[in-house]
Amino acid sequence: MAAEWLDVPAGSAFGTANLPYGVFSIGAEPVRRVGVAVGDRVLDVGAVARAVRADFAGLLGAESLNPLLAAGPAVWRSVRAAVRGWLSGAVPAETVLPHLVDRAAVRLHLPFEVADYVDFYSCEQHAVNAGRIFRPDAEEPLPPNWRHLPIGYHGRAGTLVVSGTDVVRPSGQRREPGREGPVFGPSARLDFEAEVGFVVGVPSPRGRGVRVADFAEHVFGAFLVNDWSARDLQAWEYVPLGPFLGKSFATSVSPWVVPLAALSAARVAPPPRDPEPLPYLRDAEGDPWGLDLRLTVRLNGHVVSRPPFARMYWTPAQQLAHLTVNGAAVRTGDVFASGTVSGPERGEWGSLLELSWNGADPVRLPDGRERGFLRDGDVVSISATAPGPGGAVVGFGEVTGRVLPAVGNGPNA
Amino acid sequence: MAAEWLDVPAGSAFGTANLPYGVFSIGAEPVRRVGVAVGDRVLDVGAVARAVRADFAGLLGAESLNPLLAAGPAVWRSVRAAVRGWLSGAVPAETVLPHLVDRAAVRLHLPFEVADYVDFYSCEQHAVNAGRIFRPDAEEPLPPNWRHLPIGYHGRAGTLVVSGTDVVRPSGQRREPGREGPVFGPSARLDFEAEVGFVVGVPSPRGRGVRVADFAEHVFGAFLVNDWSARDLQAWEYVPLGPFLGKSFATSVSPWVVPLAALSAARVAPPPRDPEPLPYLRDAEGDPWGLDLRLTVRLNGHVVSRPPFARMYWTPAQQLAHLTVNGAAVRTGDVFASGTVSGPERGEWGSLLELSWNGADPVRLPDGRERGFLRDGDVVSISATAPGPGGAVVGFGEVTGRVLPAVGNGPNA
Repeated sequence: MAAEWLDVPAGSAFGTANLPYGVFSIGAEPVRRVGVAVGDRVLDVGAVARAVRADFAGLLGAESLNPLLAAGPAVWRSVRAAVRGWLSGAVPAETVLPHLVDRAAVRLHLPFEVADYVDFYSCEQHAVNAGRIFRPDAEEPLPPNWRHLPIGYHGRAGTLVVSGTDVVRPSGQRREPGREGPVFGPSARLDFEAEVGFVVGVPSPRGRGVRVADFAEHVFGAFLVNDWSARDLQAWEYVPLGPFLGKSFATSVSPWVVPLAALSAARVAPPPRDPEPLPYLRDAEGDPWGLDLRLTVRLNGHVVSRPPFARMYWTPAQQLAHLTVNGAAVRTGDVFASGTVSGPERGEWGSLLELSWNGADPVRLPDGRERGFLRDGDVVSISATAPGPGGAVVGFGEVTGRVLPAVGNGPNA
Repeated sequence: MAAEWLDVPAGSAFGTANLPYGVFSIGAEPVRRVGVAVGDRVLDVGAVARAVRADFAGLLGAESLNPLLAAGPAVWRSVRAAVRGWLSGAVPAETVLPHLVDRAAVRLHLPFEVADYVDFYSCEQHAVNAGRIFRPDAEEPLPPNWRHLPIGYHGRAGTLVVSGTDVVRPSGQRREPGREGPVFGPSARLDFEAEVGFVVGVPSPRGRGVRVADFAEHVFGAFLVNDWSARDLQAWEYVPLGPFLGKSFATSVSPWVVPLAALSAARVAPPPRDPEPLPYLRDAEGDPWGLDLRLTVRLNGHVVSRPPFARMYWTPAQQLAHLTVNGAAVRTGDVFASGTVSGPERGEWGSLLELSWNGADPVRLPDGRERGFLRDGDVVSISATAPGPGGAVVGFGEVTGRVLPAVGNGPNA
């Protein structure tokens, strides 16, 4: 129940059922602050903690979410309860109101320091689409391992950028029809991928896996990811060691981390798996981590897709169990992304590769323009909502980015 | 010229021509110190700096090499000249001697905080061997892109460990002959890979590449890498997105970082490339970065291989230019490894995969035992030397690790 003085607009996706965390700064101030989004405002929770909860002042007075992430689930619950109390009249209005800032007036930053970044490939419809596009004559569009494990690879942690960061069109090697060797130049097949990311709070030791059932003991929350992809660079480079320069130039993330605690009403059963996964990958009994997140992708403001996350074949709990089953440790700030989210209908596919069928059938925008792949100046925005308790809506906000023209880079080039 | 009181053993690979940097602690002290190896000892350079060079006390009094790495080439040169002066009588012996510790008495740590980790695949002989082993009927053992770009992929930064760290045999999914689906269990084909790593000091901005000619403006130094590999996990998982759990359980690095400045006498012309690389990958005129490093691999103390780094097809300068040509930024602490180093002769191959031809022709050790792949308890040590100025030898020390048995990990398993 929000305090009387807290004017959250009716139906806001940032109501007190949500309370996502981010990192913001005000004006030209160099200092970064941990904030919680509520309605159209941001609460400087470090400032309130200093006034009324000194025990949280260190965690919430940091310049990134990492200290809070590392503190673990018991502290996450206590902090969430405290913040909710502050917004519900548990402390005098004058303790809180001076630290509520208009969201439109703040600058949002990457909310955490990224340790390792892993990208999965866990949506069956997306993998089937990719298989049909790249191997049209194959009987089975999925690779033989696909239904046995969540395929993933490490991406570049150092080029995760926050929503709003411009993305320079990457240059690199690609093949051109009729030419034997590769040519060098700006990517001609730049794409987006709509994904959901998760951030690890509590580390795991090297040599031990994280069980599916222990997902929420380690993972703090979720956010949105645009895994920008240069399809032509990727096609030439990726055999045999996987994507590299086709992905590593930039990966955009949304600024608000929605805690798992805000997603309890969004949990759904994942789709049936056939064959049954190996024991270490089975959903925890009665506790699966399918999530009914409803994504929307806009290109230059026009909705081009509505990917449904609820249909993902592998859940984030299975992804984390797989990622660590070989004894790999996770650290505070480790990020993993779901892979492109695509539903069964064309209007639910999460990349231009799929929406334009590799450029063969361009997407028609309402302004009459067409897109096979992205052009310079294009703006891609991915947003999402989830069902909250009692009919509330839990919003993720959005991850947005504009494509800038390639710059000359590389020597002698 | 070493000071009279500095008893460096004759022919030491840690003479004053070398002076590699590491991070050490003494006894049970929690504090870590930056050290320079000289002879059989380590100089606590932070302590000396506090006494005689206050301007370096911050950089050298840190608990990792990162502040020094970030300081850039002019500072690297000044610090190296100062340390050499301290060891040559430029300051009184009593200023230095109390801070020289026996190397045998210190504990060595990971010398830097790792940002991103990239592993390349830049040795032609290794790639040819791998092609012949896995695709024996193919006419051309190299993938079509191999001679056009240094193939690479991102590895797991969080599981880089310092030499001496035990490596638990990883578990995971693998195929077994005659069974349709995968089985789960400890890797039965655990391997080493002898590689050379490089660490970035000076960051580059997002959107701009690092030119081949600017390699030494960004990279601080070199060290040894054992890229432990579970061949059976890797074989099942790696199509289409590359190696993941087959590599991510542990990557061992040697504790001493040899600055590029110590490798001037080791620089050699790389082998001829055919076809000529694209302009952004061409060696800088008169300034190529081939390096005559001579590796030795020991298994349980027996020499099993002597891989020659001088024959690498792609140099580290080309690798860095490729890694960034799409606009990917590098950060202080970014690490990239060469890929397995293998020479033309069997006794020069840098992995058991090659030495035992995928287990078909096991390596015979002098004690009469055979190895197709690694057994529990096996100890792998990789060492290297390079030619130094005036007939000196520049040593890299070694990266060593013992294989421990698999532990039960994963839930319900």
